[in-house]
Amino acid sequence: MRLLLISNSTNPGEPYLDYPKYNIKEFLGDKPIKALFIPYAAVTFSYDEYEAKVNSRFQEIGHSVVGIHHFDDPKKAVQEADVIIVGGGNTWKLVRTMRDNGIIDLIGQKVKAGTPYIGWSAGSNVACPTLRTTNDMPIIDPKGFDVINLVPFQINPHYLDVHPEGHGGETREDRINEFITENQDMYVVGLREGTMLNQEGDSLKLIGNKSARIFKYGQEARELQPTDSFDFLLG
Amino acid sequence: MRLLLISNSTNPGEPYLDYPKYNIKEFLGDKPIKALFIPYAAVTFSYDEYEAKVNSRFQEIGHSVVGIHHFDDPKKAVQEADVIIVGGGNTWKLVRTMRDNGIIDLIGQKVKAGTPYIGWSAGSNVACPTLRTTNDMPIIDPKGFDVINLVPFQINPHYLDVHPEGHGGETREDRINEFITENQDMYVVGLREGTMLNQEGDSLKLIGNKSARIFKYGQEARELQPTDSFDFLLG
Repeated sequence: MRLLLISNSTNPGEPYLDYPKYNIKEFLGDKPIKALFIPYAAVTFSYDEYEAKVNSRFQEIGHSVVGIHHFDDPKKAVQEADVIIVGGGNTWKLVRTMRDNGIIDLIGQKVKAGTPYIGWSAGSNVACPTLRTTNDMPIIDPKGFDVINLVPFQINPHYLDVHPEGHGGETREDRINEFITENQDMYVVGLREGTMLNQEGDSLKLIGNKSARIFKYGQEARELQPTDSFDFLLG
Repeated sequence: MRLLLISNSTNPGEPYLDYPKYNIKEFLGDKPIKALFIPYAAVTFSYDEYEAKVNSRFQEIGHSVVGIHHFDDPKKAVQEADVIIVGGGNTWKLVRTMRDNGIIDLIGQKVKAGTPYIGWSAGSNVACPTLRTTNDMPIIDPKGFDVINLVPFQINPHYLDVHPEGHGGETREDRINEFITENQDMYVVGLREGTMLNQEGDSLKLIGNKSARIFKYGQEARELQPTDSFDFLLG
């Protein structure tokens, strides 16, 4: 299986999808690819706008995407895809629309059979067993919390250490500690912005210039570096 | 109907439930009340610990609470309650446990029949039609997004304006804009920390020293002060 699971599309102050573009290029290779793009996480802008935004960056690395919304039959589009890319936005909207279109299990089968998968933010969330470590507001009922289940652990994208000063709400670490208390058998990877996980067969690595924070019930949270092995997460 | 819907239990650096205690006292009156307390939003600490924490503050204002977990029959406990208080924590855990115990609709009937209701944070979330404006991590499937439905609008508790510097994730306003795009008929009240909504019959007021931010699809977000009328939200 080949996965590139990116924490965030964009670092503040930079153009959309700029920082990970060379990692995407390396993942996709030199031969021009026209990937299937799933823009369903978009809420406040259109699928066409989303597709155009991604294409303007992909053009710089010699690849392109076509939005699944252009196909009459989304299932067939998935079955015939060379590469599947799931963009960020609202995880709940993404999952509900994927479920309504009947493509969640199909994507799982296709990627497990060898089709490369790229996701960022919500697109990394849905590569996990469930959406239960999303940061997003549950603006729509996803009709079930199970998602694509490509990896056997949970990712918390946009993981952050800072907490707004003077704010009484839970920190991100508090929230993940609640998750592992309720889900004691699951690992959670706090994937900081500017970093990504890359699975190639049985090997899982961290890419980027920050460590990832690993949470498991009953264990002290720990920091793993890009030089460390993440293979234990594959179970 | 009598409601006190508080944004947050505690301001940073202050003792638990300290800032709203005189508002709670005024809401409950002088006659000592033993309120039914629903501690189900607790995840990383016990219901007994939660009850004790609330009681140590309530003692200062001449009232007390008893946790619903001490009753063999939670439905009967709700039916016989003089006042119902729902504490904060994880909204998803709260809703799932209330649903498993069959008390969501019962609380609605009881409060609509006149029993006063106090909630803070998750406890204010569940007074709304759905949990879809929670900030919490969806650590457990609530088996349905509908909640108690005491008010016809949505509250976003712990509403905040600041955003961690250099963070690429959505602001709170971004998230609520996604919500109203997906739910165009609903008002959302961004209820800042240190503030609360008080409904007495057909009158709804804001209490505290900050304004509330009102969101509705197709309208500019606006700030309403404690001196403004909020009655239009009651529809």
